[in-house]
Amino acid sequence: MSSGDFVLDPRLAANTQPVVTLPMCDVLLMDDARYAWLVLVPRRNGMVEIADLSDRQQAELWQEVGRVVAKLRSVTSCEKINIGALGNIVRQLHVHVVARNQGDAAWPGPVWGHGKAEKYESSRRDALIGRLQRALT
Amino acid sequence: MSSGDFVLDPRLAANTQPVVTLPMCDVLLMDDARYAWLVLVPRRNGMVEIADLSDRQQAELWQEVGRVVAKLRSVTSCEKINIGALGNIVRQLHVHVVARNQGDAAWPGPVWGHGKAEKYESSRRDALIGRLQRALT
Repeated sequence: MSSGDFVLDPRLAANTQPVVTLPMCDVLLMDDARYAWLVLVPRRNGMVEIADLSDRQQAELWQEVGRVVAKLRSVTSCEKINIGALGNIVRQLHVHVVARNQGDAAWPGPVWGHGKAEKYESSRRDALIGRLQRALT
Repeated sequence: MSSGDFVLDPRLAANTQPVVTLPMCDVLLMDDARYAWLVLVPRRNGMVEIADLSDRQQAELWQEVGRVVAKLRSVTSCEKINIGALGNIVRQLHVHVVARNQGDAAWPGPVWGHGKAEKYESSRRDALIGRLQRALT
């Protein structure tokens, strides 16, 4: 399957903005101003579990996650990074990388399923995307 | 720092049972019968974020996570695997690998921070640990 045929899950597409394209994954920003929250989606249709990837693909995915973790940390100066691969609702394989800070909306609990997203004011969102793009490319 | 000097966070120690020792990580079973829930802890003092590990150590950690994911999946025949590295409460670096099923106590939300742990009946816990040990060694 070439990456040209890749179809992003419509629920991910509806709640995110594209940031950058890494060799394996699309990196998306969740449209939720409560946290700086990125999602990596390997451009492979039909993948659900990390274990559906070959060992080599898993290594490549985690390498890209590591790169995103480092850059999100430096761009946001956050206190903690949370990484999660859940997929209980949206089954298409995706990995969350979230910048967390004491006192944020869900602290110290997980962000998934906590309250309702608060959409970004668009200039603030675009500024963050710009900073992430410069860090990640 | 040799692994002999490694000190497991007392909150992790209090809520888990040891399963196996992998080359990098101790694998622990959370004492919570609501889910088959493993935790991998790299035997390195002072590590908080994945990004605190070298690229090579990160690769080794994710390789061990991949191995645990595959074995937990086959031992439990679960519907979904959840992977998480949060550390908002216990800062010592650790990675959760949780077997999830529709209708489990937190489904489809995350397990972290959801309700109270229900301790295993000890024979059931020891049987699960035995099956995991055989799969992982």
